[in-house]
Amino acid sequence: MRYELYYWPGIQGRGEFVRLALEEAGADYVDVARSRKGGMAAMLRLMESRAVRQPPFAPPYLKAGKITVGQTANILLFLGARLALAPRAEAGRLWAHQLQLTVADFVGETHDTHHPIAGSLYYEDQKPEAKRRAALFIRERLPKYLGYFERALARSRGRWMVGGRLTYVDLSMFQVIAGLRYALPRAMARRAFRYPLLMALHDRIAARPRIAAYLASDRRLPFNEMDVWRCYPELDRSRP
Amino acid sequence: MRYELYYWPGIQGRGEFVRLALEEAGADYVDVARSRKGGMAAMLRLMESRAVRQPPFAPPYLKAGKITVGQTANILLFLGARLALAPRAEAGRLWAHQLQLTVADFVGETHDTHHPIAGSLYYEDQKPEAKRRAALFIRERLPKYLGYFERALARSRGRWMVGGRLTYVDLSMFQVIAGLRYALPRAMARRAFRYPLLMALHDRIAARPRIAAYLASDRRLPFNEMDVWRCYPELDRSRP
Repeated sequence: MRYELYYWPGIQGRGEFVRLALEEAGADYVDVARSRKGGMAAMLRLMESRAVRQPPFAPPYLKAGKITVGQTANILLFLGARLALAPRAEAGRLWAHQLQLTVADFVGETHDTHHPIAGSLYYEDQKPEAKRRAALFIRERLPKYLGYFERALARSRGRWMVGGRLTYVDLSMFQVIAGLRYALPRAMARRAFRYPLLMALHDRIAARPRIAAYLASDRRLPFNEMDVWRCYPELDRSRP
Repeated sequence: MRYELYYWPGIQGRGEFVRLALEEAGADYVDVARSRKGGMAAMLRLMESRAVRQPPFAPPYLKAGKITVGQTANILLFLGARLALAPRAEAGRLWAHQLQLTVADFVGETHDTHHPIAGSLYYEDQKPEAKRRAALFIRERLPKYLGYFERALARSRGRWMVGGRLTYVDLSMFQVIAGLRYALPRAMARRAFRYPLLMALHDRIAARPRIAAYLASDRRLPFNEMDVWRCYPELDRSRP
């Protein structure tokens, strides 16, 4: 099975959670908008064409034979079963998905630190609001989410987020930590000591052979200021 | 099976999507924080106690025997199979869940129209930002989401969001329309003619015997200004 991933070509974004799962599993996949001529047009067509019966609302989406799956967490729910990156039993599968949906909420709030008014406006056109939102995000939401995930990891015996094996949630947690360190290096450095299990998980994932090879390849896009995680020092230093 | 729903007692909020599914199915359930002495303390304990191995991040969550499921869309994924409110085949189940996750995104953006800076601040402390965000929400996001769902409904032959039968997505779509009409009556009245299928779906759901009985009962809380959908006329009238 060759999977087709459809996502914006210039950023890691939400597509990165899917890429990490495909890479860790050694799956056969093509990143359509990046690697195929006309790939970007094909991506937009899937959203906009009247001929598509079940159009996705936004990238990323994944084609697997006849099935097209949209919404990041839903794609991972689908892939988790196929790539052995999730528990098989219902309770474990639901718990992994629940954590992933909480990751999605965290990612959404992280994005809105630089876009609190509208995604259609430039950052420069919502900078005062962004400073206000970022300051409260760093003071309240960052410790709330990281503390929650640290506790969940501790209660799962500290090595993997869900049960005794690696799942897609661990890969996503790596990405969240990497993104936050890029976007908010000061805020993260000051707080890292409170989340030793998450930090160790990040390093353990980065060192896995397939992930390490992926991160060193040009398939891994660099973080940049078009992405969910953006390095704006004035937000990293903002105070309520 | 008696289901236990845990949610804030004073609002419809995200818990309402779960209530509507339980009510439509005629399921045996108890709304713990509303109907049991000490229910609110029990709800908070599930989030905060060290004895809980898989703590939810936030309400709503649902207990079904030994399983506790959190995240609204995940609860509906779980209940959809049990209450015959979702397709059985994988492709249909994933599509219903994908739509539900897009509903969740829509609900989150709706909430942030009155809380663009932080959930921990009062609306009154972020009113200028809220006006700015609401104006762009009404101009850009409202038509984008409603247009998307209207198209999805049209491509599903216009009666049910997913395939040939009612699913939990239809119930959620009813709630979204009802909430938006309460929060943004002017904006919705001006645009309703563009979404005839969604408006008819709203009325069809409201007229279903069990839903009609529920809406007329005191189990259905009134909309209010502590909820996701808040009626602030200055936001309904805001312009970019």
